[in-house]
Amino acid sequence: MTGFVALADWGTTSLRLWLIDDEGAVLAERRSTEGMATATREPGGFAGVLDRHLAALDAPADLPVVACGMVGAKQGWAEAAYVETPADPSTLAAGAIRVPEAARPVFILPGVCQRAEGRSDVMRGEETQILGLDFGDDPMRAERQLVCLPGTHSKWVTVARGRITGFSTFVTGDLFAAISGHTILSHSMPTGDKTFDEAAFVAAARAGYEHPTEISNRLFAIRAGGLLEPASAPHAASTLSGLLVALEIAGAGSLFGRLDGQAIRLVAAGALAARYAAAFRALGLGVIEEDGEAAVRRGLFAAARKILA
Amino acid sequence: MTGFVALADWGTTSLRLWLIDDEGAVLAERRSTEGMATATREPGGFAGVLDRHLAALDAPADLPVVACGMVGAKQGWAEAAYVETPADPSTLAAGAIRVPEAARPVFILPGVCQRAEGRSDVMRGEETQILGLDFGDDPMRAERQLVCLPGTHSKWVTVARGRITGFSTFVTGDLFAAISGHTILSHSMPTGDKTFDEAAFVAAARAGYEHPTEISNRLFAIRAGGLLEPASAPHAASTLSGLLVALEIAGAGSLFGRLDGQAIRLVAAGALAARYAAAFRALGLGVIEEDGEAAVRRGLFAAARKILA
Repeated sequence: MTGFVALADWGTTSLRLWLIDDEGAVLAERRSTEGMATATREPGGFAGVLDRHLAALDAPADLPVVACGMVGAKQGWAEAAYVETPADPSTLAAGAIRVPEAARPVFILPGVCQRAEGRSDVMRGEETQILGLDFGDDPMRAERQLVCLPGTHSKWVTVARGRITGFSTFVTGDLFAAISGHTILSHSMPTGDKTFDEAAFVAAARAGYEHPTEISNRLFAIRAGGLLEPASAPHAASTLSGLLVALEIAGAGSLFGRLDGQAIRLVAAGALAARYAAAFRALGLGVIEEDGEAAVRRGLFAAARKILA
Repeated sequence: MTGFVALADWGTTSLRLWLIDDEGAVLAERRSTEGMATATREPGGFAGVLDRHLAALDAPADLPVVACGMVGAKQGWAEAAYVETPADPSTLAAGAIRVPEAARPVFILPGVCQRAEGRSDVMRGEETQILGLDFGDDPMRAERQLVCLPGTHSKWVTVARGRITGFSTFVTGDLFAAISGHTILSHSMPTGDKTFDEAAFVAAARAGYEHPTEISNRLFAIRAGGLLEPASAPHAASTLSGLLVALEIAGAGSLFGRLDGQAIRLVAAGALAARYAAAFRALGLGVIEEDGEAAVRRGLFAAARKILA
């Protein structure tokens, strides 16, 4: 199958690949778990993985590829050094590198960094997704928008006039794993219990948002409550999650100013999207749920048009 | 050597034992690492450990012993159930249990618990230390005092008129270990680097106290700063410590009200005492450093006199 370009969202643990026509429409796609973390161990490394998926789509051997994500990290296929904020699709295209060892033209978009005392930050992949969000008919006229991409390292990003103007990472998912697995709270988390108690989550999110600085005490209260009143203790994992999400939202409010002026754009899928949306609503904050996969494709396509022009 | 009573501060990892005369003066002492966690594996278990140390002091076989700490936990020698706040030496004496299996009279003081929605809390050992602090000539007239006992699970305790009226645990040391060992920050912590950078600690404590809700972002900034400017990145472990201590102090302020009204009584020793005292001073808070070992002995003696009267 011919096409204008192949676009790849190539992260730490996954690869999503789309064959795209010259108007940005999807002709075919592939999904794989051959992410940055394991691709070097595949036959032919990154190039081998890419060629096999493109061959499966009958793509021509000289079809150009534009990729974003951890594939461009130092420990990835080829390093695409961070560009600094403010960043837009032109900045990403200008910072793209062509992979020297690839037979076909393969371009990797850079990540974005922010240099500021105590506010140093980096992202890789999310910038492309954010720049692919639809901010209305004339994105260059759009006022500042606040975008939340939750995860192990949640990103909160400000976008104005089509450019990423600033961002902050919160290590929410990372904290959840470390606290539930490696502190006294591990004794309150039954192994294998993956159930989610939305009432406990929402109650903890409300309490945590009201008094965010008390989180370290509320963590111990989960344990002590379970010791003193085992029967009535709320679900520990859901409570921990609610407290950590609340701390993230309170931190974003501290960094970005009032959060209730306009809806927060939430870029997530599945259970994570549902959980953050529930927290925003419980805290009286507006939320617009975005389709992250369509967004990263649009962001890649915008950069690809500039690179291949 | 005869004596009035033997007093034991028997925690998870240590035992301190004093032979005491009837006015509370120390006649002799023993220190050991045979704490609650390992005493069951010693010959004769807890009783064997205690008897050997008392024999080494030539104490009579019928000398009574009064102990506090994790030795009275469910997983200790014999469980001394928590008493509730408010608690004073009489409450502790009334809640003491006599160990059934011991040949000599051995009494274990209870821990203290607080039952309150989302504020459930427990302590075991610290209550005896706190009630042994010297609050002046007439402790019954003393106004509310705020006591900080830092550690893996830091305790902040309010004392008024000689009674513990409330307390809150902060899992500061536990968080430090989990975050430095089991999150992305572990990559910023050189193994074996135990140096302490006071300037980095104090700067982080100030920044963290000013914007405590941003801590999750500042944790990532430690990592990102190291990636972007390896040469000028501040000491990661000391920065993490400063941020977590600041979060604890901010949380205590949220729970107990303004902290600058009177000096905080800091019960700690060595490096930990120096670190917390430095943080309090950097934040403009008054601090009185207390001798924790003398305090626990006085608290044990006050309870012993009531038990043995």
